[in-house]
Amino acid sequence: LDEAAMAKIQVRLNSLTKPQGSLGQLEHFAKQLGGIQRTSQPKLLKRAVLLMAGDHGVVEEGVSAFPQEVTPQMAYNIINGGAAINVLSRQARADVVLTDVGIAFPLEGNCLHRRVADGTRNMTKGPAMTKKEALQALLTGAEVAQEKIQNGYNLFATGELGIGNTTPSSAIVALLTNSSVESVVGRGTGIDDKGLLRKCQAIEKAIEVNKPDVTDALDVLMKVGGLEIAAIAGSIIQAAASHVPIVIDGFISTAGALIAAKLAPKSVAYMLPSHGSVEIGHRKALAELKLEPVLNLDMRLGEGTGAALTFHLVEAALHILNEMATFEDAGVSEKAN
Amino acid sequence: LDEAAMAKIQVRLNSLTKPQGSLGQLEHFAKQLGGIQRTSQPKLLKRAVLLMAGDHGVVEEGVSAFPQEVTPQMAYNIINGGAAINVLSRQARADVVLTDVGIAFPLEGNCLHRRVADGTRNMTKGPAMTKKEALQALLTGAEVAQEKIQNGYNLFATGELGIGNTTPSSAIVALLTNSSVESVVGRGTGIDDKGLLRKCQAIEKAIEVNKPDVTDALDVLMKVGGLEIAAIAGSIIQAAASHVPIVIDGFISTAGALIAAKLAPKSVAYMLPSHGSVEIGHRKALAELKLEPVLNLDMRLGEGTGAALTFHLVEAALHILNEMATFEDAGVSEKAN
Repeated sequence: LDEAAMAKIQVRLNSLTKPQGSLGQLEHFAKQLGGIQRTSQPKLLKRAVLLMAGDHGVVEEGVSAFPQEVTPQMAYNIINGGAAINVLSRQARADVVLTDVGIAFPLEGNCLHRRVADGTRNMTKGPAMTKKEALQALLTGAEVAQEKIQNGYNLFATGELGIGNTTPSSAIVALLTNSSVESVVGRGTGIDDKGLLRKCQAIEKAIEVNKPDVTDALDVLMKVGGLEIAAIAGSIIQAAASHVPIVIDGFISTAGALIAAKLAPKSVAYMLPSHGSVEIGHRKALAELKLEPVLNLDMRLGEGTGAALTFHLVEAALHILNEMATFEDAGVSEKAN
Repeated sequence: LDEAAMAKIQVRLNSLTKPQGSLGQLEHFAKQLGGIQRTSQPKLLKRAVLLMAGDHGVVEEGVSAFPQEVTPQMAYNIINGGAAINVLSRQARADVVLTDVGIAFPLEGNCLHRRVADGTRNMTKGPAMTKKEALQALLTGAEVAQEKIQNGYNLFATGELGIGNTTPSSAIVALLTNSSVESVVGRGTGIDDKGLLRKCQAIEKAIEVNKPDVTDALDVLMKVGGLEIAAIAGSIIQAAASHVPIVIDGFISTAGALIAAKLAPKSVAYMLPSHGSVEIGHRKALAELKLEPVLNLDMRLGEGTGAALTFHLVEAALHILNEMATFEDAGVSEKAN
C-alpha cells in the first residue's frame, strides 16, 4: 500500500470536524482505499460482486440440508434477479457477476461460462480436484476479476454459491488455522445434529485419505477445496495485483481468502472485512487474516450478501473523507491541551 | 407490536429463496417494522435524524477534551451541512433535524429553537435540572418527533451534540444498570488519564450530592442528566406511541433510551440497535435494553452517525422482504427432511 497517500489521508482525517479517530473503521477504510489506489483522493467507480459457483462431490456423504440440484436452481434465480444478493446489490448499486466455475451440470443463461469441471470429486475418496483443475479455477477467478477491472470496476465483493461448500471451507480453515475439525464445523444451510456429525466425519476422513500438506495452500485447495473457492482466491489475488480493494464475504469466501493469503501474503492488505457469520469457523479464519467484522447480523447465507451490505460503509468512508468540513473551514475549536 | 403482521411476515420470509433465518438480523428488522407499523407490508417513507443539542454545567469540572464553545460551533457546522452526520444522512437520504434544547448561549440560524435552559447546572453542586426543566425537555423531544411524524416521516434515528455529555450519560448508565461508575466511564471525545479521573470523581460527587432515586428515572434524569438526553428520551417515547421505529445511536443516545425504557417500558420494542461504541459503558446500557449492535466500527462520535449508517440495513431488510423471489416463483427445491 502507498504509505505516502495514507499519511496524507490521515492528515486530512485529523483536520475534519470530529475528535481524531472517532469514526474508527470508516477512517481505516478511507486510508486503506487511498493506500490501495495510491492516491490521497480515492474514488469509487463501478462495483461488482464476483459470485463464483461450483458443486461438491462430497455432498454424497449427506453433509448438506439442501439437495445438489439447488446449486443450478439458485444460479438461475440469481440470473433472473430474485436472490438475496441481487436485491442487496441493487440497493448498493453493484453488479452481480455470476461465474459457473463448475456446477455439476452446465447452466444455460446469462452468466460467465468458465467451467473447469462438473463439480469436484468426493474428497472423502481422494483429492477433490487435480492440481491442474485447482490452478485453472484459480486462474478463472483471476481472469474474471481482470476483465471487470478492464471494464472500469474498482471495488469488488467476493461471493459464492455451491451446495455443500461449507464442508470444504471447514476443511481448509481447520488445516490453515491449525484448528480441530469440530471447532470449525457449523450447520451450513441448516443440517441437523446427525448431519453435523456426518459433516465432521467426512472432513476427518478427507484429511486422513488425502493427507494435505498444510504448508502448501495449493495442495490443501486441490485435495479438500472447491472450484468456486479456488476462483475466489484467484479473484482476490488478481484484485490485489491490480490495486483494487475486495470485500470478503462470509465463511466460504474467507476460506478462499485464506488460500489467497497463503499463496500471496501481500493480498491481505487489499481485503476489506464484512460481516461475522453464524458459522463457528468464520471467526478463526478472520482472526488468521487479522480482519475484524464490521457487521454483526447473524447471517449465514453466503452469495456475497454480507459483503454487498458493506459497500454502504466503504462508500460512507469516502463521503466522510471528501465532504466533511475541516476545523478551519467551520471555525470549530480544536481539542484543548 | 402487531403479532399477526409479524407472523405473516415470518411466513413470507420463510418462503424466500434462502435457508430459513439465514439473513438473521435483517429478517428481525423486517418483522419488527411490520409489528411496529401494524402491517405485513411495512414501508419506509421519509426518515430523519432527530439531533438534540444541549450544554452541561459539569464541564466546569474539566471532564471534556474540548471546550464548551464547541457545542455551538458544531451546531453551526451541522446547520451548514459540514458535519459527519450531514454527510452520512445525505448518503442515507435522511434529513438532519437539529433542535437546540439548551445550548449555553442561543444559536442563530436554521434549527429548531426549543430552548429549555442555558445548559444544565453543574451536577456536582446540585441537580442538573429542575423537575420542570427535565419534563419540558422530555416534552420538547416528543413534540419534535410528533411534528415530523405529522410531516410524513416514519423512520427516526436519535442523535445528540453537547460537549461534556458522556459525563451525565455515564452517571445515568451507572445508576440505571446498577454498575460502578468506573466501569461505565470512557474517554468521550478523548480526555487523558487525569481527565478520566476527574470525570469519575465528578460523577461520584454528583451522585453523592444529589442522591438520585434509582427507581425513579425522572429523578435520575433531572439530577444527573442533560437537556438533550431528556429530549432523546422524549422523542423515543413519542415515536413508540405513534408506532414509528427509532434507531438508537451510541452511548449518549442509549442513556436517553434507558430513561425512555424506565419511563415507558413498551417503548423498547420500537427501538432498533445501531453500532457498538468505543465508550465502555455502552455495552452495559445496550444489554439492559436487550439490544445487540449490528455495526462494529469502533466509532465514538455521536451526532447520530452510527444510527444513520444503520438506515442502510433497515432499508435492506425491506428490500429483502419485498423483492426476493420465493421458492415457488423461482422453482428452487426446499430443504430436505
